[in-house]
Amino acid sequence: MLVLSESSIGILGLGLIGGSIARSLRHRFPTINLIAHDVSDTNTEIALKDKTIDACDTLENVAKGVDILILALPPLNNIEIIDKLPGLVNADTVITDVSSVKSAINIALNSTPTSFKRNFVLGHPLAGSEQSGYSASSSTLFYERNVILTPNENTSTRAVGTIHRLWHSIGANVIGMSVCEHDEMLAATSHLPHLLSYTLVNVLIKKNKGNDIFRYAAGGFADFSRLASSDPALWAEIFLTNASEIEAILDAYIKQLTNYKDLLLDKNKDSLAIEFAKAKTARKYFMEKHFSSQSSPENMAVTKNYVVNPSNRIKGSLRVPGDKSISHRAIILGSIAEGITTVRDFLEGEDTLNTLAAFREMGVTILGPSRGKVVIYGVGLRGLQKPRKPLNMGNSGTAMRLMAGILSAQSFNSILMGDESLSNRP
Amino acid sequence: MLVLSESSIGILGLGLIGGSIARSLRHRFPTINLIAHDVSDTNTEIALKDKTIDACDTLENVAKGVDILILALPPLNNIEIIDKLPGLVNADTVITDVSSVKSAINIALNSTPTSFKRNFVLGHPLAGSEQSGYSASSSTLFYERNVILTPNENTSTRAVGTIHRLWHSIGANVIGMSVCEHDEMLAATSHLPHLLSYTLVNVLIKKNKGNDIFRYAAGGFADFSRLASSDPALWAEIFLTNASEIEAILDAYIKQLTNYKDLLLDKNKDSLAIEFAKAKTARKYFMEKHFSSQSSPENMAVTKNYVVNPSNRIKGSLRVPGDKSISHRAIILGSIAEGITTVRDFLEGEDTLNTLAAFREMGVTILGPSRGKVVIYGVGLRGLQKPRKPLNMGNSGTAMRLMAGILSAQSFNSILMGDESLSNRP
Repeated sequence: MLVLSESSIGILGLGLIGGSIARSLRHRFPTINLIAHDVSDTNTEIALKDKTIDACDTLENVAKGVDILILALPPLNNIEIIDKLPGLVNADTVITDVSSVKSAINIALNSTPTSFKRNFVLGHPLAGSEQSGYSASSSTLFYERNVILTPNENTSTRAVGTIHRLWHSIGANVIGMSVCEHDEMLAATSHLPHLLSYTLVNVLIKKNKGNDIFRYAAGGFADFSRLASSDPALWAEIFLTNASEIEAILDAYIKQLTNYKDLLLDKNKDSLAIEFAKAKTARKYFMEKHFSSQSSPENMAVTKNYVVNPSNRIKGSLRVPGDKSISHRAIILGSIAEGITTVRDFLEGEDTLNTLAAFREMGVTILGPSRGKVVIYGVGLRGLQKPRKPLNMGNSGTAMRLMAGILSAQSFNSILMGDESLSNRP
Repeated sequence: MLVLSESSIGILGLGLIGGSIARSLRHRFPTINLIAHDVSDTNTEIALKDKTIDACDTLENVAKGVDILILALPPLNNIEIIDKLPGLVNADTVITDVSSVKSAINIALNSTPTSFKRNFVLGHPLAGSEQSGYSASSSTLFYERNVILTPNENTSTRAVGTIHRLWHSIGANVIGMSVCEHDEMLAATSHLPHLLSYTLVNVLIKKNKGNDIFRYAAGGFADFSRLASSDPALWAEIFLTNASEIEAILDAYIKQLTNYKDLLLDKNKDSLAIEFAKAKTARKYFMEKHFSSQSSPENMAVTKNYVVNPSNRIKGSLRVPGDKSISHRAIILGSIAEGITTVRDFLEGEDTLNTLAAFREMGVTILGPSRGKVVIYGVGLRGLQKPRKPLNMGNSGTAMRLMAGILSAQSFNSILMGDESLSNRP
């Protein structure tokens, strides 16, 4: 297993994301060897001067001989370079990218040799800012933010595990999903809002002839137009490379907007109010569910530490009916297996999602659950990482007992937490 | 002139806005007599208990006998009540409302007697929150926020001056504009963004079947959907009562969005990037120009205080060619005149806008400049208010000299500031 602190990492592109990865790695592993390439001499000069990188070099030289190579260029440049890379990198170099679109990158990857493909883990940190460039980069950009990895059956678990540990080490939460799911989700929750924001500002500019419409705009408008401050060239590329997903969601949006216009012209106050109430409720649910860090210790009820004794190693192959107890076991076995485990008919519930989250925290990349399917990139029994925070087992006695067994066999200490009811159980 | 601290003020509706006005007035003028009406007994009970209001009563009893009556009900209720009010209020009661739409209120007002109309000042504070109700109200909601008044030629300068002083006393900046300008601006910068936000969330709900699309949405989406948390029934009313303006801007928006979709499908990256760059630049300008408090002392260069000697009173009627020096004089004369002054061919520049801002700060309601037209609701020479902050004359020697003359005749002290160059002039 690659030891990150002793590894050599190459970064192509020192913009906001590439620069922030470099700063984060330098901060976390002072001894790491970081080399970078950027078309802007200014970026690399500043990064050398502030000692974030050890050297800068040509794209070809950076790609040669590093343990991990990170493509942090705009999407079209990343695609271009994927063609050239197999001739440049070592056979065991693990590669990842950070693009906001994955299908387009994946298509480029498909025509590379299998030996190259297996080392390439498509990735995307859901972190950013409307600011751009190395000057806006920060060593804390990824702290507690989600990073999505979209490996497939061609990707080796070694490569997935390495990239998972890299993001984990700089504070990110790693989540797996399929390329299609990623691009559909991003089109809806990020790409469309950006397009809506650019469009709003441009409509107002047209409206603004001789009449300073912005002058007394209030805070809501400021929030809403913030995304329109994002890098125009980068976003034009993102839209083009995810065009079909964006078109689909954009059509749905225009249709919905036209419906609401009709309700407005019909003076149908009640239907409008019902529609808006639906949105308000959904948004409230969204904010409570996903924007409060639910797994933080402050949100937990009474906690207790258990001293657990080692249990035997678990090994085998299973074909069992899907239920909660079996779903827990499926995650556990898949995580400590070596290789890719696909689980179908996974029972998705609060308890099993807690177990998933626990193994993600210990460095396992897990795709889904999506329509009952979960894909686990097992790290092997020795591959689990020390969790950075207590693992929350919620109300699940099954998970608590199974996890206690697994964790007792690890070389690191860990804390298991439960809700009030679980903590009071013997 | 009505002394606010000794006056009796009635508020109809103790929601977020009505409640915040009540709390602000109570905080500023502990001795004021505040009575309120709300359909919710809970709201009035809490407001009585926390000593924000002195009494609650029926709508009719609140309207009777107060010096100032504030309509803080939803737009359609405000419209309904305007019919009844002329038979209820005293002849000299000054009335205002807080609705986000002004045309619909104005139409209702048009069929009231002239003697009632002249006392009614249409108003709208550009302050709010996606939260609603008395429990979300605060005594600082209007601090440093813009309040728009839309008086017309039927409105008395006495009524305009009274409502201006009321908002000024609780920290707001008062701006005048025409009813049409207000509704067009609000449709573009507030109503449309709210509709876009509700629509986005509802499109995502539809998309979300069996696939938790919100789960990994990032911060940009949270910002963008914030407006969808606003009160659904209230916003349905706002949309209906400003339907024609919203329809116009919505059509422009859908057209622009469709254009961008075509650029996307044509893979026209350059045109998209140019469009987005236009939006980014406009937004940057907007934020710098209107969201930094440019008139705050910290942003000023070297400052100097001048001791000025009293000058003679200025009085008269002028018909002169439009230029900068004359534009300054027009604002000054209009502000200290009694009655409404309309200025045409106003030269709009940084200097003259500074002079406008200075008189607004001293309690004068000024509409425009809009296409060279400025309408000033003069408060009379004795009607100017002590400014809450130094008056910035920027780089204008003319303004500095004229203002020094005017201010020396006032009963209050005031500070005039200029930029570095002006401060160094003798």
